[in-house]
Amino acid sequence: MAKPKKQPRPKAETPKGFRDYFGAEVSQRAAMLRQIAGVYHRYGFDALESSAVETVEALGKFLPDVDRPNEGVFAWQEADESGNGDWLALRYDLTAPLARVYAQHRNDLPTPYRRYAMGPVWRNEKPGPGRFRQFYQCDADTVGAPSVAADAEICAMLADCLEEVGIPRGDYIVRINNRKVLNGVLEATGLSDTAQRDAVLRTIDKFDKVGEAGVRELLGKGRLDASGAYIDGVGLSDEQAAPVLAFLTSKGADTTATLGNLRGAIGGSDIGASGVDELEVIADLLAAQGYGPDRIVIDPSVVRGLGYYTGPVFEAELTFEILDEKGHKRQFGSVAGGGRYDDLVKRFTGQEVPATGVSIGVDRLLAALHAKGRLDGKAEGPVVVTVMDRERMADYQAMVGELRAAGIRAEVYLGNPKNFGNQLKYADKRNSPVAVIEGGDEKAKGVVQIKDLILGAQIAENATLEEWKERPSQFEVPRAELVEKVREILGGQG
Amino acid sequence: MAKPKKQPRPKAETPKGFRDYFGAEVSQRAAMLRQIAGVYHRYGFDALESSAVETVEALGKFLPDVDRPNEGVFAWQEADESGNGDWLALRYDLTAPLARVYAQHRNDLPTPYRRYAMGPVWRNEKPGPGRFRQFYQCDADTVGAPSVAADAEICAMLADCLEEVGIPRGDYIVRINNRKVLNGVLEATGLSDTAQRDAVLRTIDKFDKVGEAGVRELLGKGRLDASGAYIDGVGLSDEQAAPVLAFLTSKGADTTATLGNLRGAIGGSDIGASGVDELEVIADLLAAQGYGPDRIVIDPSVVRGLGYYTGPVFEAELTFEILDEKGHKRQFGSVAGGGRYDDLVKRFTGQEVPATGVSIGVDRLLAALHAKGRLDGKAEGPVVVTVMDRERMADYQAMVGELRAAGIRAEVYLGNPKNFGNQLKYADKRNSPVAVIEGGDEKAKGVVQIKDLILGAQIAENATLEEWKERPSQFEVPRAELVEKVREILGGQG
Repeated sequence: MAKPKKQPRPKAETPKGFRDYFGAEVSQRAAMLRQIAGVYHRYGFDALESSAVETVEALGKFLPDVDRPNEGVFAWQEADESGNGDWLALRYDLTAPLARVYAQHRNDLPTPYRRYAMGPVWRNEKPGPGRFRQFYQCDADTVGAPSVAADAEICAMLADCLEEVGIPRGDYIVRINNRKVLNGVLEATGLSDTAQRDAVLRTIDKFDKVGEAGVRELLGKGRLDASGAYIDGVGLSDEQAAPVLAFLTSKGADTTATLGNLRGAIGGSDIGASGVDELEVIADLLAAQGYGPDRIVIDPSVVRGLGYYTGPVFEAELTFEILDEKGHKRQFGSVAGGGRYDDLVKRFTGQEVPATGVSIGVDRLLAALHAKGRLDGKAEGPVVVTVMDRERMADYQAMVGELRAAGIRAEVYLGNPKNFGNQLKYADKRNSPVAVIEGGDEKAKGVVQIKDLILGAQIAENATLEEWKERPSQFEVPRAELVEKVREILGGQG
Repeated sequence: MAKPKKQPRPKAETPKGFRDYFGAEVSQRAAMLRQIAGVYHRYGFDALESSAVETVEALGKFLPDVDRPNEGVFAWQEADESGNGDWLALRYDLTAPLARVYAQHRNDLPTPYRRYAMGPVWRNEKPGPGRFRQFYQCDADTVGAPSVAADAEICAMLADCLEEVGIPRGDYIVRINNRKVLNGVLEATGLSDTAQRDAVLRTIDKFDKVGEAGVRELLGKGRLDASGAYIDGVGLSDEQAAPVLAFLTSKGADTTATLGNLRGAIGGSDIGASGVDELEVIADLLAAQGYGPDRIVIDPSVVRGLGYYTGPVFEAELTFEILDEKGHKRQFGSVAGGGRYDDLVKRFTGQEVPATGVSIGVDRLLAALHAKGRLDGKAEGPVVVTVMDRERMADYQAMVGELRAAGIRAEVYLGNPKNFGNQLKYADKRNSPVAVIEGGDEKAKGVVQIKDLILGAQIAENATLEEWKERPSQFEVPRAELVEKVREILGGQG
């Protein structure tokens, strides 16, 4: 008989582009989602959780994210007897599922339908440093509200969310632009050729990267890019390009000035004028609620998503500087975006349904709070009750029982108790504030030893001998006072 | 030129076996997960969130769930240039990813590693009524703890979790069995043939369905099942079958009696004796912490998962009766299960690592609380500020701003305000407690109308004319007292 082949061991690895989140990473994200959900809820939005899996047919292809042009979905075909099962896919955002949900349940849902959703989405794209194929989104959308009051509200709510999670006023700005104004600008250029208009749209998308001068070149004859390659231009004359450049640079000293500049850029376009009017209404509504341009500002240089949305477009940026991987200072940048998209449900029902919404990138927000030192990476560890005598496990379990009943995080060391040093190393690795010790002597005397591990670490690092004598980090207390004493130590850390 | 083909509209449908969760369903589940996470945290467990996607290689095939024998995974092959990409799959539980995580990160993790995880898992199986292909699990596991004190702790924690989410003592029971005892019983049968031993294991799995008499027949010659088909038996003699039946029916009047019966069933088997000793230690530890057999009981009739686990096995059942779809009374049944599995990490590392854990089925727990009327299906709706004059949107927004600042959920009606009846219908559909009305007259007088919609509904249903006059459901209050008055009405509902 042949020797059975040895099965090679499987590799213990996440798939490329995926990662694990541990301890504080998980609980801090959960806390942030809870905070944002609290604001969304207070604004009257209802929770919706659709499944991670959709039919490819229902999902469609709607990605607004111009930053990720090669995005794709994870998809597979259902096995059925005929071999002709549906194609299924993981959702790539929370907006496409909303469109499907609204189309499917519209007769049972209130109109307007205000919903929030939070959860992971998946993108089948090449992973890069800090770019993962599964990440969280946290969206709120209003479906069925034609009024720009709905857009204004979303922007106010976005500002509230940022402050709620710990970004103080002054450290963020919400910028608003309007696709209708851009449409007016395109009218003002006099271009009628669709391909040329699309080329202008694609060029505008590069404004963030190449700036005014770059866009001017790209709208005209072309441009030598940083790598030395020559990029062909759209071929507009200076006169044709002028309204586009005026649009992109129309931000003035205040809202009135900006709106005036925009009216100049759109020439006589009706759609453009209605777009500027909408921005004015939004600015007025926000000002009436106390959201001034220090928090929410009309800014026509916001171009992300302009190709996707059909009306107002918003983006939230963090304005403080952080150090990037190379140690250079840079602005943290965008953490949320959204806008109005009046045709999302149409592909299902044939009817246009006005909708507007925002998506907050919680993973980026968490990274920002970490970069600012506003979130600690370490979780608060449990009180560890050590095991000096494995026959008295019930005694140790009783101690953690009492501590837990008092709301204190606590556990008995459950590894092999033979080596006491390993128990203290474990407590250290868990970031435990306190270790409890009860050997045979202590048991006989009715006491326990309490080791203040945080104080101990401080003393080991800094203290003089005097201080060390004055503030011992290990105490003996009566067994009956265990909970009280631990609570005292934990309280003293605040 | 041929007419372009009209693209058929996509169907707005979830894939088969998936569903959407709305409003209170989402927030109640989130609240339950938070409560359970709170207990897990208090017990010293740390959060872990692995990705939904794993390589098929790492995932392996470990499903313990004997109830779902045809389960499969959703899997697909990564596209790469060579066409030989990895096979990826959605996780089918939270235990297989834990094994991969522990094997991958074991040098950085504390030992024992105590982790909890919560989130959706996916099963590619035929959907049935109430059986979905995506559902939540909520697990806690201790990896690297050989002592059965870890198992006892998991059982205590499970009882605490059930009480925390609102299952009172007396309405649940956690039952504990031990695979080692079963191994001892198999030794006592004298069977040495592996195929026959496996057949006995499979028969034991049917104990829940066919009972003692059924198992007796199936261990022996065979049995006529309900459909009239004859099921061949394992072919044991009465003497060989006796230890198995003794094992399954060994639950006595108290723990001492049960343990005594078990010692009888295992004959002279060493592994069996060590299994009974373990159960005794667990029972003693739990008793010392006050978890008596009214909450956690040694019960050898628990057979779910016995084929999968290697040591203690636990299951939590809700003991109250509910009405099933046909209106028959039945016990609600199992909501959580777990046990010790000492070989999960071995396939990655070659080393045996002891592990024990529990998985709570939150969706079933939520269903149980609904069935008992302990959870309300309706979410508390927002205060709706109606729009009487669309030019004064800023005034209405100011009102909701004040209400929200006071912590009150509120929104302006953002649909078409033309038909006032639609606005009140909307408030009704949202389950709003209060509607606010401010027309031109009210504005001029400096007042607002407040409509108590809950009182209004009660009056419409029950009240006499006298009561109706005494307790008008609509009041006029000074604009400045809006928040105070709304708060008063909301407070009165508690």
